[in-house]
Amino acid sequence: MALIVQKYGGTSVGDIDRIKNVARRVLTTKNQGHEVVVVVSAMAGETDRLIRLSQQVTRSPDERELDVIVATGEQVSTGLLALTLKSMGCDAKSYQAFQIRIATDSAFGKARITGIESERVRNDLKNGRVVVVAGFQGVDVQDNITTLGRGGSDTTAVAIAAALKADVCEIYTDVDGVYTTDPNICDKARKLSRISYEEMLEMASLGAKVLQIRSVEFAKKYDVPIHVRSSFNDHPGTIVCKEEKEMEKVVVSGVAYNKNEAKIEVMHIPDVPGVVANLFKPIADANIVVDMIIQTSSTDKGFADVAFTVPKSDFPKILQIVKEKLKEIGGKDIKADENIAKVSIVGVGMRSHSSVAAQMFSALAQEGINIHMISTSEIKISCIIDAKYTELAVRALHDAFQLDRPEVSEEKQ
Amino acid sequence: MALIVQKYGGTSVGDIDRIKNVARRVLTTKNQGHEVVVVVSAMAGETDRLIRLSQQVTRSPDERELDVIVATGEQVSTGLLALTLKSMGCDAKSYQAFQIRIATDSAFGKARITGIESERVRNDLKNGRVVVVAGFQGVDVQDNITTLGRGGSDTTAVAIAAALKADVCEIYTDVDGVYTTDPNICDKARKLSRISYEEMLEMASLGAKVLQIRSVEFAKKYDVPIHVRSSFNDHPGTIVCKEEKEMEKVVVSGVAYNKNEAKIEVMHIPDVPGVVANLFKPIADANIVVDMIIQTSSTDKGFADVAFTVPKSDFPKILQIVKEKLKEIGGKDIKADENIAKVSIVGVGMRSHSSVAAQMFSALAQEGINIHMISTSEIKISCIIDAKYTELAVRALHDAFQLDRPEVSEEKQ
Repeated sequence: MALIVQKYGGTSVGDIDRIKNVARRVLTTKNQGHEVVVVVSAMAGETDRLIRLSQQVTRSPDERELDVIVATGEQVSTGLLALTLKSMGCDAKSYQAFQIRIATDSAFGKARITGIESERVRNDLKNGRVVVVAGFQGVDVQDNITTLGRGGSDTTAVAIAAALKADVCEIYTDVDGVYTTDPNICDKARKLSRISYEEMLEMASLGAKVLQIRSVEFAKKYDVPIHVRSSFNDHPGTIVCKEEKEMEKVVVSGVAYNKNEAKIEVMHIPDVPGVVANLFKPIADANIVVDMIIQTSSTDKGFADVAFTVPKSDFPKILQIVKEKLKEIGGKDIKADENIAKVSIVGVGMRSHSSVAAQMFSALAQEGINIHMISTSEIKISCIIDAKYTELAVRALHDAFQLDRPEVSEEKQ
Repeated sequence: MALIVQKYGGTSVGDIDRIKNVARRVLTTKNQGHEVVVVVSAMAGETDRLIRLSQQVTRSPDERELDVIVATGEQVSTGLLALTLKSMGCDAKSYQAFQIRIATDSAFGKARITGIESERVRNDLKNGRVVVVAGFQGVDVQDNITTLGRGGSDTTAVAIAAALKADVCEIYTDVDGVYTTDPNICDKARKLSRISYEEMLEMASLGAKVLQIRSVEFAKKYDVPIHVRSSFNDHPGTIVCKEEKEMEKVVVSGVAYNKNEAKIEVMHIPDVPGVVANLFKPIADANIVVDMIIQTSSTDKGFADVAFTVPKSDFPKILQIVKEKLKEIGGKDIKADENIAKVSIVGVGMRSHSSVAAQMFSALAQEGINIHMISTSEIKISCIIDAKYTELAVRALHDAFQLDRPEVSEEKQ
C-alpha cells in the first residue's frame, strides 16, 4: 500500500465527463489498496474567465482581490470531484487552502508555500477517505487568500506529497511525459523514462513547460519523486527524481529552447568598478529578471561591452531604462535585438565529460548557425542564436547527441 | 456619523456595470461620513449555474460539497466589488466567512449563524476602509464551508449589523420596500413606511418574499433596524423595527397570501389520546413541516376529523404516509385538495381590536368566498379558501381594512 498524491490539470477536469474520468482513475488507484490525495486545478478556461471579469472593472485589478476571485476556480473543481466520487460510492472530502492551512507568504499572485498542516488530511486517509485539495491556493498569516501563479497546482501537489511523505506525486497532464525536446519541432523527440531534479529544473527554466519550476525545486528539496504522465491513457510517463548513478552515463538528456527573450548590448562603457552595478540597479528596481549577462573587453582599452538578455515582454521598458542610464554611465551606444532564441543542452553527465561544449558549437557551425552569446552551468550549455535558426538548431543538437537512442536504464529494464 | 451595513442582492450585482453602480452608492454613503460594511450575494444566475453543474454529476449531490461549490458565487462578488471600490480610489477589503469567522451549525444548505468575530472588520473600519463581506456563507466548528439557504445573505447582513451594533441594516433589493400586499395582484397596494418585526415575520412566513424569515428573527432578537429599499432609486423604503405605540392604531398592516400549500383531511378517527400523535409522527420523521392543523368533532360521537396543510412539494409523499397510517389509526377516509390558497391579514393593532376576525369573514362572504379552515395568532388571521378566489380575496380584504389609506405615522411626518 502506497500513499499517492495525484494532480489533475485544468484540461483533465475541463467538464463533468472529464471529472467523471478522473474520479474513475482515482477509484482504480484506491481499489488497488493505495491511499489517495487528489489536487485539482480550475476547470479549463475558468481562471481566464475570472481574470477577464476582473479586467472589465479595471486593467490593473487589486492583487489581493484578484486572488480572492481566481481562487474560486479551484474551489469549484474540488467540490465537483468530491461529490462525483461520493456519488460513485467512494467516501471523499474536499479541502480549500484555509482548511488545511496551506500557508504562504503574502505575495499575491505569486505566493510561495511555507508550510502545510496535514493533520486533517492524515485523519481522513486513516478513515478510508479520498482527500481532494484545491491547487493553486494558499492563505497568508492574516488569513488572506493567495494564489501561487500559473502552474501553481503542481507546487501544491508536491508540497502536500512532501508534507505527507507520500511515495510519489503523480502529475497528470495532456502530454505523455518529459521529452528529450519539443516533439512539435523535432519528430525524433523521445520520451524520457527518468530525469533528475537538476536536469528538470534546467529544462523547465529553459522553456520546457511541463512542470512549474517551483514544484521541481520543492520536490528536490524534500526528495519527492514526481511521475509526469497523461490523464488520457495508462502509459507510464517520466519519473523526475534524485540523480542516480545510471544517469551520468547519459551526457545530454535534452535540448530546450526559448524564443521569449530579447538581447540588449551596451557598448563601450568605462571598465571601472560600479559602472555595471549602476546599469543594472534600475532594472532590478523595476522587478525585471535579467537572464544571461556577458561582459567583454571593448576593443578600446579601459572600456567594456555588456550584453544581456531579458524577457521580451519587458523589452520596451528596459530599453527605455538603459537609454536613460547611458549618458550617466558613460556608454557610447546601445544595440538591441528581438529576433534571437536561446537553445540549450542539459545533462548531469556533462560534469564528467569535457568535450560537450565543443561538440555543441561544431554541430551548430555545421549548419551555418552563428552563436551570439554563450552561457554555461555545471549541467547545461546555452547559446543565443538568430531566432530563425531555432528549429534547425534543436534538430541538429538532438542528432549530434543521439538523443533518439533509447536510454541505458531503459535497455536494462 | 453612523455605522451602516448595506446588503445588495444578486440582481444588484448582476454584471460589472451594476457592480459599479453599487460601488458608487457605497461611496456616496461613505462620503457622507458614515462607516460602511457591504454584504453581497452571488451575481444573478450564478448560484443556479453552480447548482446545475453539480446536478450534472448527480441529482442529489452531497450537501457538504454542494455548499463548497455554491459558496464561490458570493466570493467572486466580494472580490469584484472590493476591486471596483479600490479602482475608484476607495480603500476596501473583502472577507469570506472563514476570515471573520461567521460561525454556523453544520446543517449544510440551511445553516444557522451562531456567532461572528467582528474584530478584523472593526479594525478596517477604524482605518477608513469599506469592508465587503460574502453573504450566504458560514463555517462550522470543523472549518467546513456552510451556506444559509436561499435569501441567506439577508441574515448575514443583519447578523453583522448585530455584531457591530450598527445603526441600521439597509437591504437593497429590486422592490421599493414592503407593501400592504402584492402590488402585482392589487393595484391599490401601498408601500409601508414602517412595520414591526412581528408583523414582518408573519408577512414573510405567510408568503411575502421581501426578506428571509431568519434575518427578521435575528433583527428582532438583537434589535437591528432594517431598511428595505430599492437599489435602482433613492426613495426611502420600509423600516422594519421594534413595535412602536403609533403602530397599534393601525389594526391591519398587510394582506398576505400563499398558494404553495395543499390540504389533507383525515376523516372519522377515534377521538382517544395518542391517535393524532401517531398520525403526525411519521410526517415529522420525514422532515416535513405541517402548517395549519385543525381538529373537529366528527358527527359520530367519539370520533374526530383532522385537517392540515402542507407544502405542495411534499404533498405526494405525505399522502402516501397518511394512506399507510389510515388503517393503523382506525380512520375512515382521506380527502385531499391541492387547489387551495391561504389568505391572511396581519397587524399588531389586532391585539386590542376584537372585531377584526368578524370583519374578515364578512368581507370574504360578501364576495361569495367559502372558508375551509381558519387559524389565528395574536397578530394574524389566516383563512384557507379555494385557490381560484385568491386575488379576489386579497383585493376584498385590502379594501375592507382600507389599507390604501396613508398611515397615521406618515401623515404626521
